Amino acid sequence: MKILIMGGAGMIGQKLLNLILSNPKLRNKQITEITLFDIIDSPYPSDSKIPIIVKSGDISNQQTSVDLVSSKPDIIFHLAAIVSGQAEQEFDLGWNINAKGSWGLFEAIRNIGDNYCPRVVFTSSIAVFGAPFPEKITDDFFTTPLTSYGAQKAISELLLSDYSRKGMIDGVSIRLPTICVRPGKPNLAASGFFSGIIREPLNGKEAILPVSTEVRHWHATPRSAAGFLIHAAEIDTSLLNHRITLNMPGLSVTVQEQIDALQRVAGNSVVKLIKHKPDPVIQKIVSGWARDFETKRSIQLGFKAENNFDEIIKVYIEDDLNPKN
Amino acid sequence: MKILIMGGAGMIGQKLLNLILSNPKLRNKQITEITLFDIIDSPYPSDSKIPIIVKSGDISNQQTSVDLVSSKPDIIFHLAAIVSGQAEQEFDLGWNINAKGSWGLFEAIRNIGDNYCPRVVFTSSIAVFGAPFPEKITDDFFTTPLTSYGAQKAISELLLSDYSRKGMIDGVSIRLPTICVRPGKPNLAASGFFSGIIREPLNGKEAILPVSTEVRHWHATPRSAAGFLIHAAEIDTSLLNHRITLNMPGLSVTVQEQIDALQRVAGNSVVKLIKHKPDPVIQKIVSGWARDFETKRSIQLGFKAENNFDEIIKVYIEDDLNPKN
Repeated sequence: MKILIMGGAGMIGQKLLNLILSNPKLRNKQITEITLFDIIDSPYPSDSKIPIIVKSGDISNQQTSVDLVSSKPDIIFHLAAIVSGQAEQEFDLGWNINAKGSWGLFEAIRNIGDNYCPRVVFTSSIAVFGAPFPEKITDDFFTTPLTSYGAQKAISELLLSDYSRKGMIDGVSIRLPTICVRPGKPNLAASGFFSGIIREPLNGKEAILPVSTEVRHWHATPRSAAGFLIHAAEIDTSLLNHRITLNMPGLSVTVQEQIDALQRVAGNSVVKLIKHKPDPVIQKIVSGWARDFETKRSIQLGFKAENNFDEIIKVYIEDDLNPKN
Repeated sequence: MKILIMGGAGMIGQKLLNLILSNPKLRNKQITEITLFDIIDSPYPSDSKIPIIVKSGDISNQQTSVDLVSSKPDIIFHLAAIVSGQAEQEFDLGWNINAKGSWGLFEAIRNIGDNYCPRVVFTSSIAVFGAPFPEKITDDFFTTPLTSYGAQKAISELLLSDYSRKGMIDGVSIRLPTICVRPGKPNLAASGFFSGIIREPLNGKEAILPVSTEVRHWHATPRSAAGFLIHAAEIDTSLLNHRITLNMPGLSVTVQEQIDALQRVAGNSVVKLIKHKPDPVIQKIVSGWARDFETKRSIQLGFKAENNFDEIIKVYIEDDLNPKN
């Protein structure tokens, strides 16, 4: 079984790679080859027992996708994207990579013909939703994105759905919650503080909280995200009844609940490193974000996320702060 | 004020043209020029007092849209599309015209620059919805199209919404009900009988009813459709709060209610021309179609449709069977 990970150099791509390498089977078949694709060369463990091929390129060039699928991978994880903030600033770049790039991939698969019909797992996002929202967003709530990134994800979902309905691809789109705790350095994303107020204090550093502690948001760990991707590669898509886009499970918590969990897990001295500095710009952006979901379908289909924020912090400590390997 | 009607040769394009010519003002401004565009030359009344320009071409060719918008029309009605059945059979043609064609139009508008920001009224369809449905589809119900046509319409909506949010276009997408009574000859569309069982008997001809009289569906007249388009050109889009896609009002009736209305309007002898010949293929297709809607937003915004099926039949008689002009 051959696997292609598009967006392999990204944080979730790397988590997925490591999860696959720890148990190199999918759909009861041994994985024999993994191709990692990204705009840059993707890192990978030098001791991998499975052959790993590294490719780089730009998926707004249709030929890139044609080359990538020419070896007929059995499962394609399509995580490649320009991130939200950049897609909002660079209109053409966002549309070319996030919408035309996905479309080009689907066309490249279709054009192989010869009954080639790979499982494609596409990572969409809760950015397909735009405020105002109900208290909990249900599985049949409409998509009214308020960012170009969200519109590009929603369009890619619709394309994958139609190519799948026509039997050209065996697709599943999964809408990821905000990933928390995101490892690594702080970044300038408006959502960065949700991870920052946990990660920085655990690393002995100060963290800025720019919003009220009453802000509620929707989270899942990088470990859960990698698990969603594996599960989406495994599920029987005939159960989806052509509704191949799924809101992933997650945990809805307030910032105060995040802080309380940090106190329980790491103590008062760590929590004291969080400094409250209200930022009206970030407050305004965050007020337009989804707070809570009812994800009946994905839970019924066996997707699993964390049950409380203590668990989310412990996953960060185990996987990223003090990893065993 | 310059108007461009794309899809001007079609039934609704022609109804819209005649409605505009009967009162050649939009947004309190006199209309000074109308361009009719379609894949073929559009007909128009030879006695029109307003200059009419007829153009034909293929919008899957980007240059076609560039040429069409180069004269900077103030209002663009975008009705041009490959119909549902054909888009389902000819995959590339449907995607090229219905999705890439719309996108090309929006790009052509954007690329003019110079603060050009026309009102674009895009005709979408209830085909963006796919069964199973709730009893009444609400304004915030999700789009899970079960035809390529529906997916292409949903994608065009998302594109128009993002270009509008970015201030490049002033767009409104309206999802039309099934148009009934459609004038002209019977066609092979699966939905054809909804109009056929009224139109053929009123013209003294037999009509085949291929489904149960219990089938419920969602209708509006061609006159209402033209009215929706005019109203969508007039409304203050700042009221839409970036949710520029609207389910149009309509009338939900069963086939039995259609037949009862025909009896009231035209009598028993006309109704007897309807012959019940169940067709399992059409029954199956129709069972996946939306039956009823709750269209709070569009009604609140002043869009108006018929209140009962007698009225729908009378509109057909007035406008198409025995028109005054």
